Amino acid sequence: MADGATPRLVDHHCHGLVQRDLADDEFTALLTEAAVASAGAFDSRIGLAVRRWCAPVLDLPAHVPADEYLARRTELGFAEVDARFMTAAGLSALCVDTGYVPEPISTPESLATAIDGSAYEIARLEQVAEDLHGKVDAAGFADAFQAALRQRTERAVGVKSIAAYRVGLDLDPARPSAGDVVGAAWRWLSGGKRIADPVLQRFLIWCAVDRGLPIQFHAGLGDSDVDMKSGDPLLLMPLLRAVEPTGVPVMLLHNYPFHRHAGYLAQVFGNVHVDVGLATHNLGDRSRVLIEETLELAPFGKFLFSSDAFGLSELYYLAAVLFRRGVAAVLEAGVSGGSWSAADADRLARMVGSENAVRVYGLGDAGFRHTA
Amino acid sequence: MADGATPRLVDHHCHGLVQRDLADDEFTALLTEAAVASAGAFDSRIGLAVRRWCAPVLDLPAHVPADEYLARRTELGFAEVDARFMTAAGLSALCVDTGYVPEPISTPESLATAIDGSAYEIARLEQVAEDLHGKVDAAGFADAFQAALRQRTERAVGVKSIAAYRVGLDLDPARPSAGDVVGAAWRWLSGGKRIADPVLQRFLIWCAVDRGLPIQFHAGLGDSDVDMKSGDPLLLMPLLRAVEPTGVPVMLLHNYPFHRHAGYLAQVFGNVHVDVGLATHNLGDRSRVLIEETLELAPFGKFLFSSDAFGLSELYYLAAVLFRRGVAAVLEAGVSGGSWSAADADRLARMVGSENAVRVYGLGDAGFRHTA
Amino acid sequence: MADGATPRLVDHHCHGLVQRDLADDEFTALLTEAAVASAGAFDSRIGLAVRRWCAPVLDLPAHVPADEYLARRTELGFAEVDARFMTAAGLSALCVDTGYVPEPISTPESLATAIDGSAYEIARLEQVAEDLHGKVDAAGFADAFQAALRQRTERAVGVKSIAAYRVGLDLDPARPSAGDVVGAAWRWLSGGKRIADPVLQRFLIWCAVDRGLPIQFHAGLGDSDVDMKSGDPLLLMPLLRAVEPTGVPVMLLHNYPFHRHAGYLAQVFGNVHVDVGLATHNLGDRSRVLIEETLELAPFGKFLFSSDAFGLSELYYLAAVLFRRGVAAVLEAGVSGGSWSAADADRLARMVGSENAVRVYGLGDAGFRHTA
Repeated sequence: MADGATPRLVDHHCHGLVQRDLADDEFTALLTEAAVASAGAFDSRIGLAVRRWCAPVLDLPAHVPADEYLARRTELGFAEVDARFMTAAGLSALCVDTGYVPEPISTPESLATAIDGSAYEIARLEQVAEDLHGKVDAAGFADAFQAALRQRTERAVGVKSIAAYRVGLDLDPARPSAGDVVGAAWRWLSGGKRIADPVLQRFLIWCAVDRGLPIQFHAGLGDSDVDMKSGDPLLLMPLLRAVEPTGVPVMLLHNYPFHRHAGYLAQVFGNVHVDVGLATHNLGDRSRVLIEETLELAPFGKFLFSSDAFGLSELYYLAAVLFRRGVAAVLEAGVSGGSWSAADADRLARMVGSENAVRVYGLGDAGFRHTA
Repeated sequence: MADGATPRLVDHHCHGLVQRDLADDEFTALLTEAAVASAGAFDSRIGLAVRRWCAPVLDLPAHVPADEYLARRTELGFAEVDARFMTAAGLSALCVDTGYVPEPISTPESLATAIDGSAYEIARLEQVAEDLHGKVDAAGFADAFQAALRQRTERAVGVKSIAAYRVGLDLDPARPSAGDVVGAAWRWLSGGKRIADPVLQRFLIWCAVDRGLPIQFHAGLGDSDVDMKSGDPLLLMPLLRAVEPTGVPVMLLHNYPFHRHAGYLAQVFGNVHVDVGLATHNLGDRSRVLIEETLELAPFGKFLFSSDAFGLSELYYLAAVLFRRGVAAVLEAGVSGGSWSAADADRLARMVGSENAVRVYGLGDAGFRHTA
Repeated sequence: MADGATPRLVDHHCHGLVQRDLADDEFTALLTEAAVASAGAFDSRIGLAVRRWCAPVLDLPAHVPADEYLARRTELGFAEVDARFMTAAGLSALCVDTGYVPEPISTPESLATAIDGSAYEIARLEQVAEDLHGKVDAAGFADAFQAALRQRTERAVGVKSIAAYRVGLDLDPARPSAGDVVGAAWRWLSGGKRIADPVLQRFLIWCAVDRGLPIQFHAGLGDSDVDMKSGDPLLLMPLLRAVEPTGVPVMLLHNYPFHRHAGYLAQVFGNVHVDVGLATHNLGDRSRVLIEETLELAPFGKFLFSSDAFGLSELYYLAAVLFRRGVAAVLEAGVSGGSWSAADADRLARMVGSENAVRVYGLGDAGFRHTA
């Protein structure tokens, strides 16, 4: 739990909370990346972590059986459960990707209230573009998208690309020509709303580069819809070479099981930052190793905290607890082994827990939303 | 060694024992995946593990020099050596891939006797098909294969695909058309017996899906004949998406060094299970880490024990000892670190050691062969 | 530091020292693989390792702030700094890749003096070929290269390929035809000096095989110019299968984050050896895990020490300290855990520290240069 002695974290990538009570299989389905709910999810590291860490927040003993946990959750109701976990997470600010809304979820404003802190918006590029489907013609798409992006990011602190889910990260680094964009827009507008076209994905990304805000890229871990081979962040190298001179920050999200690849990119590209969100809570007590492996090459000044939590307030809390404990364990082992000083450990913990995010996203500047 | 307090394991993927005494270089050649025997194999983790764990079973002190170990093995003779290791392994059942027989090896029946337990057959798809070479024409191949598969799996509990060795795992997920199968069969029947054709491999796999038994896939670790890049289990994702709705269990074998990839697949696909056979004994005392990394995402209910032992009885024993110790170390660390309870640890150990295999393969049902 | 009780290491792959005092940002730029110098480099494992291990060699306390370290370095001057680190590294011999000279750097002879030991040359294939640009025609290139290679390797102990940087490691294993070489040479000679042609790279490699000296391949870790995906050593498998029968040693350098892949190749191919140079010092106190993971499959007789140091004498020293400590930690853990005997640990440490290199490169034979 957060107390005066524990610095609060900035969660630089998350989503909203489901606003209703959940059936047991709905809870289980939201717990992992599996498409189908399975009671077996409790017999994996994340399920064991829920029983270990989340149960006490609901006044249950640690390691309580899963069915008792679910019964208590239902008994308390989602509003009370969410209030407890969001407070216990010890967060000072969140950057909320507002582009994934399969059902009504909590807004950044309400999340800010829940953590007694601040929330900022991350605009999802694909959503901004897809909102134009049926409203523009091919010739007008490019201008319309750029205008929409400007408007949608007036108060946003960053944007997000899910190219990994749509066409993979093996992207041609060149900015597409105006003619190519018109042609691709024409094909897209002739079909369904969902964008999964390499030319359009590249166009969206280059518009984001022009916009100048940090660009988050989904990489690695996701559900079974993602082609994981195409989500290896190393595939982004040509694009990263092209973007590096602009100085626009690139934020590689999740990354597991390619987190060492991401750490390498964070070392060699001046503008690349990494996290291990989503993986942190999925790996439970192995999150320490995950953090340690990512920080083999990634400079501490390029490593950030995120939960990538969606739906369940347990996931914000678990990610925060496991990140804090993992970072502390890594840094304390270095102190006790003589690899760095205790003062270094304190300083590095602050960097990865909040200072890097505040610096890269300019939190506190325009776009700030404080509700506390 | 197995005693009343140590639950016996089910080895869900192994082969048979060579039925003769071996020259020293034949022993070394069977010890690792190297094509050429090398005395240097003893100076690797598996060789050190033989000297540590196997020597005492042959009445030698632990860490005995390799030449003394080999001399003692010769002195005792293969029958006595095999009897000792197969008993010491502490196995209750084996699932035996009968499709790799470079020389006469022990049958499932004799293995069952050797462990004082049960043995079941796994039919190798490629072998079933290749047995038809020269006996069918292209037009008749599809029906002939389906009939042969039905016959060969009357008492089998699963089938095995070595697509990774033949064409790689980057398979088109679609069931091939009847015409495509005839064409591919025609090309195959015009040449040598060995099948290495993507259309035929897909046909074999879809026939196996129709048959409904668990399908084992070679993935990752193998000898230098395998194209390791093409053996990454992530390449199977399109096929796994196509097979998941059938509910047919998919068993990803070996997986190292892609075991984290396999663990991810076991989380997101309801029917995917994983093991780290072959790697377990090759990695010696690093097998604990291997198991721990695989179980980062893989649910405990989807993780199984296998040895993938071939030829040497030491490999059944080593795999069992190292798996048992590795799982125990992982689970005990969780208990002492407060990540789960001792009761959980006991339960999870039983699942991965035998219960998962019994459930998935339906061991004890028709096809059961008990000789004890 | 090296003393009578600490065996000296053979560094089988390194470069020379910059021969001048460096500005702070020049030092930082040479410290990591980042293209742009960043003060943040000190807040990564390698920077923390400099403050921990290098500071005392310059009479500073461990963990001294980075700016004090840099000031002291400047105060002492490069000649004194280099003398201290090269002595403290405890090296008996170096194999020096003389093919990367962006500015005047120390020669193998002067390095031999600096370590009070021996230095040997590794000839870079691409440099030997590129020196012929403008001096031969396409028809004469093949013979001219073979003659140049013979001459340049008269006293060299090995050659180096940077195919990973130029065309990637996914090489057609076939020896190119004479006609293909003429065609490729014609295209190359019509343009710039830099070779990045798959036919020419293959020709260079096969000439090296004919020459019979150990061939070093860059694999894995490098700067942002390398296409890391194409540097996975598994891509070399077809070529390794083709080269194995010749018995010519292949040395896979660096390998991180694909070091487990390299370990696999070292197990299954009789002529393949591996190291984790460059990564060792970049990973700081994580180098122990790096070494341990590589030695999961790699036989101890196939694992070598290298620094891949360039420019800064700190890198020779750090690599040696971290390798020695990492190997010792791995081997001592095995002894205390009962996995092998203390005598085995001593023997294996000698193999990886120097004996493997002496054997594979035939150090002490013709080509030997001793200056001490």
